[in-house]
Amino acid sequence: MFHGLSAFPLTPMNESGVNEKEFVNLIQRLVTAGVNSIGALGSTGNYAYLSRAERLRVLQLAVDSADGIPVMTSISALRTMDVLHLAEDAQRTGAGAVLLAPVSYQTLTNEEVYSLYEQVSSSLSIPLCIYDNPATTHFHFSDELHEQIAKLPSVRSIKIPGVPSDPEAAIVRVNRLRKLIPSTVTIGVSGDPFAVTGLNAGCEAWYSVLGGLFPKTCLKMAQLALDGSKDEANQLSARLEPIWALFRQYGSLRVVSAAAEINGFISGPSLPLPLQPLNGLVRDQLKSILIEITSIESSC
Amino acid sequence: MFHGLSAFPLTPMNESGVNEKEFVNLIQRLVTAGVNSIGALGSTGNYAYLSRAERLRVLQLAVDSADGIPVMTSISALRTMDVLHLAEDAQRTGAGAVLLAPVSYQTLTNEEVYSLYEQVSSSLSIPLCIYDNPATTHFHFSDELHEQIAKLPSVRSIKIPGVPSDPEAAIVRVNRLRKLIPSTVTIGVSGDPFAVTGLNAGCEAWYSVLGGLFPKTCLKMAQLALDGSKDEANQLSARLEPIWALFRQYGSLRVVSAAAEINGFISGPSLPLPLQPLNGLVRDQLKSILIEITSIESSC
Repeated sequence: MFHGLSAFPLTPMNESGVNEKEFVNLIQRLVTAGVNSIGALGSTGNYAYLSRAERLRVLQLAVDSADGIPVMTSISALRTMDVLHLAEDAQRTGAGAVLLAPVSYQTLTNEEVYSLYEQVSSSLSIPLCIYDNPATTHFHFSDELHEQIAKLPSVRSIKIPGVPSDPEAAIVRVNRLRKLIPSTVTIGVSGDPFAVTGLNAGCEAWYSVLGGLFPKTCLKMAQLALDGSKDEANQLSARLEPIWALFRQYGSLRVVSAAAEINGFISGPSLPLPLQPLNGLVRDQLKSILIEITSIESSC
Repeated sequence: MFHGLSAFPLTPMNESGVNEKEFVNLIQRLVTAGVNSIGALGSTGNYAYLSRAERLRVLQLAVDSADGIPVMTSISALRTMDVLHLAEDAQRTGAGAVLLAPVSYQTLTNEEVYSLYEQVSSSLSIPLCIYDNPATTHFHFSDELHEQIAKLPSVRSIKIPGVPSDPEAAIVRVNRLRKLIPSTVTIGVSGDPFAVTGLNAGCEAWYSVLGGLFPKTCLKMAQLALDGSKDEANQLSARLEPIWALFRQYGSLRVVSAAAEINGFISGPSLPLPLQPLNGLVRDQLKSILIEITSIESSC
């Protein structure tokens, strides 16, 4: 569940609602590729923009379409009460695990974040992955807080927001965290441009945005790195550098939603307002980048 | 509406819901003091932690209890669709104005924020105040974006997040923004520790957290500054420095909610989990600070 490639699909949506058919089609791409797990309703899946009822419905579609591949889902919300409701929904729906990010409006203290995880983890009958995503939550975990939370019941993985780009520094960073947490808790890298560096440095999982759209390419990259073929994994990641550059500049969500539209996987607009799609020259640039990625995907 | 003291009351709430009686009591304190306007369901009023139905109910209570004092309310939400629904609710309920902050999960671009304000302002029949609160929204307005948005129909005020502490620098900052925006748009300072410096520098309004609890003290301070009695206004603000220090360290919401509990205005706990109240030594410190503030409030 918390090893290998965990692919995070988009939830195609706009002002008219979620496009369920397109969502199921995206899930089926992941099933065909044989990803290790599916992260439905992550940040890429727009969980923050959906109601409890919509999240329940999308999760049900994911579980029903996943053909036995374990599905994890975000239960993050501003209020603890809502997180607990979402956890109930996830369990009832057959999710294999939940992701929890300390999303905030008022800045949260370490004590508040710890108490949130303590309360939620003690109520769960399925595993929990700590979702450390400072770009969206604006909460910064210390390794010491990760240590405390990782010792709670139910916690089985930490989704970290990238590693240093220098391979040696990445190893130091992963090892430091590893020494603090129980051996039952894996470390998964996110921030796709960092993925291979993270896997090469000892992360067991890649929580992947691009994997939600091009699962074969990302699965191959993850397997190369996890099998110890570091150079080959790096070479494949280097071929994707043009899209990593767009991720860094425009945010991965806007890039993958535009990519999915361009490749005809989903129709546009596919993001909830006020979020706007990539347009103009950047979209043209993405189009030419996608020719290469689509070709890699076909060859995997 | 967008001049003088705008007092932002707490919405007392916990895992059992909103305490409506206590909320109405807080509104009545503001009515008795004769504040210039009431900012129901601002950040201090926990709007971000309440459902649409709860926000509607609390706003209705505020309008019904305000005895003719204009009530403004936040219509902020992550989705434009929800903002538009909240705007309808506000208008239907008799709110005098709305506040709109560009709250975000995915980081917003300037274009996305402008389009949000454009769409909302064109749908409004009541005035709008731009709610610039980077500590909670994590969006940073440039003065040039303020200029663009301030020219939209419906926009009548900008709630800025403080001014430089140096009085001359504060004047430069307020004047720079003033030159860019229409004369129909006022500038209101927030961040209570900056309030008198902001008013002395030419802001027309103070959007005040402490004013939601100690309205007479804050009204006196605002009136002194707006009448040109800069030194006296500064002296009164200086007497409140101990509570401003707690605001800076713990966030104004946690401090005023604890202060309201200590003074018996509301019962505890009064914040939604995962937010926790001030406790221990800090609470004891606040208790002794409140003796002085309560005495000032009685003498106003």
